[in-house]
Amino acid sequence: MEKKEMDEKLQKARHSLAHILAKALVSLYPSTKLTIGPAIDDGFYYDVDLDEQLTPDHFETIEKKMKEILNKGEAFERKEVSKAEALKLFAGNQYKIEIINELPEGEKISVYYTGDDFFDLCRGPHVESSKNLQNYAYKIHSVNGAYWRGNEKNKMLQRVYVYAFADKKQLAEHVSMLEEAKKRDHNKLGRELELFTTVDYIGQGLPILLPKGARVIQQLQRFVEDEEQKRGWLLTKTPFMAKSDLYKISGHWDHYKDGMFVLGDEKKDKEVFALRPMTCPFQYQAYLNRARSYKDLPLRYNETSTLFRNEASGEMHGLIRVRQFTISEGHLMCTPEQLEDEFKNCLELAIFMLKTLGLYEDASYRFSQWDPEDRAKYIGTKEQWDEAQSTMKKILDDLKVPYEIGIGEAAFYGPKLDIQIKNVWGKEDTLITIQIDQMLAEKFGMEYTDKDGVKKNPYIIHRTSIGCYERTLAYLIEKYAGAFPLWLAPTQVKVLTLTERNNDYAKKVYDILCERGIRAELDDRNEKVGYKIREALSMKIPYLIIVGDEEEKNNQISIRGRGYENKSGLELNDFLARLEEEIKTKKLN
Amino acid sequence: MEKKEMDEKLQKARHSLAHILAKALVSLYPSTKLTIGPAIDDGFYYDVDLDEQLTPDHFETIEKKMKEILNKGEAFERKEVSKAEALKLFAGNQYKIEIINELPEGEKISVYYTGDDFFDLCRGPHVESSKNLQNYAYKIHSVNGAYWRGNEKNKMLQRVYVYAFADKKQLAEHVSMLEEAKKRDHNKLGRELELFTTVDYIGQGLPILLPKGARVIQQLQRFVEDEEQKRGWLLTKTPFMAKSDLYKISGHWDHYKDGMFVLGDEKKDKEVFALRPMTCPFQYQAYLNRARSYKDLPLRYNETSTLFRNEASGEMHGLIRVRQFTISEGHLMCTPEQLEDEFKNCLELAIFMLKTLGLYEDASYRFSQWDPEDRAKYIGTKEQWDEAQSTMKKILDDLKVPYEIGIGEAAFYGPKLDIQIKNVWGKEDTLITIQIDQMLAEKFGMEYTDKDGVKKNPYIIHRTSIGCYERTLAYLIEKYAGAFPLWLAPTQVKVLTLTERNNDYAKKVYDILCERGIRAELDDRNEKVGYKIREALSMKIPYLIIVGDEEEKNNQISIRGRGYENKSGLELNDFLARLEEEIKTKKLN
Repeated sequence: MEKKEMDEKLQKARHSLAHILAKALVSLYPSTKLTIGPAIDDGFYYDVDLDEQLTPDHFETIEKKMKEILNKGEAFERKEVSKAEALKLFAGNQYKIEIINELPEGEKISVYYTGDDFFDLCRGPHVESSKNLQNYAYKIHSVNGAYWRGNEKNKMLQRVYVYAFADKKQLAEHVSMLEEAKKRDHNKLGRELELFTTVDYIGQGLPILLPKGARVIQQLQRFVEDEEQKRGWLLTKTPFMAKSDLYKISGHWDHYKDGMFVLGDEKKDKEVFALRPMTCPFQYQAYLNRARSYKDLPLRYNETSTLFRNEASGEMHGLIRVRQFTISEGHLMCTPEQLEDEFKNCLELAIFMLKTLGLYEDASYRFSQWDPEDRAKYIGTKEQWDEAQSTMKKILDDLKVPYEIGIGEAAFYGPKLDIQIKNVWGKEDTLITIQIDQMLAEKFGMEYTDKDGVKKNPYIIHRTSIGCYERTLAYLIEKYAGAFPLWLAPTQVKVLTLTERNNDYAKKVYDILCERGIRAELDDRNEKVGYKIREALSMKIPYLIIVGDEEEKNNQISIRGRGYENKSGLELNDFLARLEEEIKTKKLN
Repeated sequence: MEKKEMDEKLQKARHSLAHILAKALVSLYPSTKLTIGPAIDDGFYYDVDLDEQLTPDHFETIEKKMKEILNKGEAFERKEVSKAEALKLFAGNQYKIEIINELPEGEKISVYYTGDDFFDLCRGPHVESSKNLQNYAYKIHSVNGAYWRGNEKNKMLQRVYVYAFADKKQLAEHVSMLEEAKKRDHNKLGRELELFTTVDYIGQGLPILLPKGARVIQQLQRFVEDEEQKRGWLLTKTPFMAKSDLYKISGHWDHYKDGMFVLGDEKKDKEVFALRPMTCPFQYQAYLNRARSYKDLPLRYNETSTLFRNEASGEMHGLIRVRQFTISEGHLMCTPEQLEDEFKNCLELAIFMLKTLGLYEDASYRFSQWDPEDRAKYIGTKEQWDEAQSTMKKILDDLKVPYEIGIGEAAFYGPKLDIQIKNVWGKEDTLITIQIDQMLAEKFGMEYTDKDGVKKNPYIIHRTSIGCYERTLAYLIEKYAGAFPLWLAPTQVKVLTLTERNNDYAKKVYDILCERGIRAELDDRNEKVGYKIREALSMKIPYLIIVGDEEEKNNQISIRGRGYENKSGLELNDFLARLEEEIKTKKLN
């Protein structure tokens, strides 16, 4: 069976199961008024108006009643009725009445029967008989409040959520995936590990990186800046705001203003500033600082750049979607002849970063194109877009990048290659982007004198290398369930004492670690060592050094490696050499 | 003679010389209408209304005429006249008439005669005779346009600027100081060396750090973060903006709002944000992230923090006074018993930084106190201020800090020790600050459980360690006239070829330098080596490596060190070892 056909079959079964749930609820709680009950990604829900407040204590009873109904093997029978008949059938249920009244006059209305004793207003389609549902596995997992039709002026209904899959195995896999996701969710784990927090009176989408989180980002930034320097990128540091004048030249004022934080009011103030949503027009100023010739190209500028985007409240999520973020941004100016090679270099850099972080296997590629039907969103002519997109297509095909196409997902100034990652809940976002732009150079008067003496506009590649640091941190937390590779771990080693007698020796070991540049902590509290080990392991510290009388006597150490390694009688220097090698090679777990 | 008395004498002489200039101008250009001519810091000026446009070509003639007048040794004679007499004496000069008419009715008006043929409206005092001025040295240095009374609606006058000192030696010293300052001025030199630029359409006070400037700041930041980490500071990374709610708690909304960039309008918008002018209330969130006990203290948080201040247009200057800057900011929470030691540690850190950068000898200290006559500027009670200031006084006296007192210069929440530096033009600004605050912890509910089980508010030290990076860069440019110490130099070594035959060998040398982490450039252009050397030295590159046939044959190098060193027949490895030692020890020039 094709995937699409399978999906349709599953969704039909889920929706049919929603009717079974409805029948069970009506049977158990006769006051139940049914409203709507659609299939969703992992099962279905039904919104009901019901006197009794459903709690997890009710779930087993309801599931049992559903089983009982399914065991009867009743047919799902479609009947068509007139509007008048429908209104009569559902008299007493103001929700269904409301739905029926909104249907166009004269349209045939369908009602599905499940057995003689239950029917529901429904378009269908459904399975033929509940016999077809007997192998399906389902599990009620929660009940939330939901306003009728999502409007807070309406009555609050109870929304019963149910997981539903084709068999028990698939249901079990889904539940265990969710348990794993819950454990790895950066928005929960990142707070527990004291990597970041948020504070109401500071605002949504403005995370505070606590010392452990700030340390990880510091290490990432230094690594990226150094790697880019090796590859010929020149670091800039440009301002985070500018007068509206700049954005009017770049096109942001016309095409991106809603996403920007604006300071001041054009009608009242002499100068209006805006926080930057992108680095491009700022970094171009470095290019414009002197006249350029073809001999200067390619010119590659990078920056550890902070950007601001005025995201809607509902869209913000942990460290993944925020209002202020820091990004490894770069702009590269080159001649048409250099474009393919330079694009390839940018892609290689991005892949090198993903591999170093262990995220490469999780990435997918989108070739984000403009939408020719929505011209107002973009600058430039159809010819320019056709040229930029066909250039990009040729490069991507030459490089055999396995991309999907996203229509209408281009930047307003050019097409993009977006490298996508999914979070633990399956939601996909862009981590890295490489874009081709042949329009902004002209707008800013960026030129180079070519071999033939003629002044020309360079091509510009906009690119990130690991993308947004906050987002990368989020994916790393989820990927490693908080147990970062040693080179990134905020605390790399914790020294624990067995008894207070060993405090001086422990301090000596700790000092040596610090001198060698290892990020270490010391726990010489007068607590049981088992307690101290559990606490340190819960903070996902890669290595614990444990010292007691035995270790002190022999001038040695014992180690415990995140639960999977347990060795005694080690020389500190040997262990240090091992740590340093692991850090230098950026060994993944 | 006391300094004050000497200053008064000099200012009297300068103002008297202004009359001599006036007499010379009237004598040379009879249409001259005199207005005002005060003494200033380095001499005096006179604003005149004059048909002829004065240019540097006129200066010698005027100076000669002044000499001629001085040689007569005429007396400065004061005469008192009535308002009516004064109006008659100055009939035809609308400026003097305007001044006279503004004088209170009945007040005696003084007029100073210099010889019988010249008089000027003047309060005095003056020297007794121009004989007393004959040893003074003066030099007309510029003529600028200046509106009468500074009002652009009035007529534009000519302002003649003159340097004037007690003797030729002092004048010569002043002129040579200015020439040196001009050469070192970061606002000029920093642009020439491509360290930074500014762009009109981005805005004033928003400098763009070009790759060379960004590299210096990157090196400084890494050095500061690493040094602070060694000293027990925990890095944070907190947002650059917050809802107004935060600033209302901290007091910034009431006491600092004018200096802040506000996003949105409280009357219209649900949420109003503001860019942060200080890091304090953000960094406190790390402290507040969990309950604290006395065992956790002192807790030291540092951050490479970007701040925004809405400076007035007239106050901005190069990299020294800007609207956005990055600062090594830190906040330390401690018990009262820990305060003195921790303050001392902060001061030691600041001094260590100043010494490392070679700025220590140039620093002076201000103990910035509140102004009890201007209570509205501050939060807290008189008792709290008295306590905080006497605590700080005791600490500063114990540490023998040679401070001056600045009344009304405190932060709104507490007293400060400000470490001041002067720029090449003599203008002083704060580079580093260490502050004691016993008020904000209470406002934010920051507590610790003390040994006695009682919850208490910690003391907070606000401090910077090298202060604002942009400003530090400016002082370093001026201190070293752009020739940074090797460890900070944006380009550390440039490899130059003698002939094109040596290009491969030069590239090999260059690659080795890069591999060893030296910031290197390669100049293998087909140009005369003398030209290439001059160009590299003008960019103040510390070391040039020159390779020709001789060097290539022997697998050696020749070096040229910023003009003061010239050696041939060196082994590259020996030179590399020397470079690495100089970088590691942060050797000053």
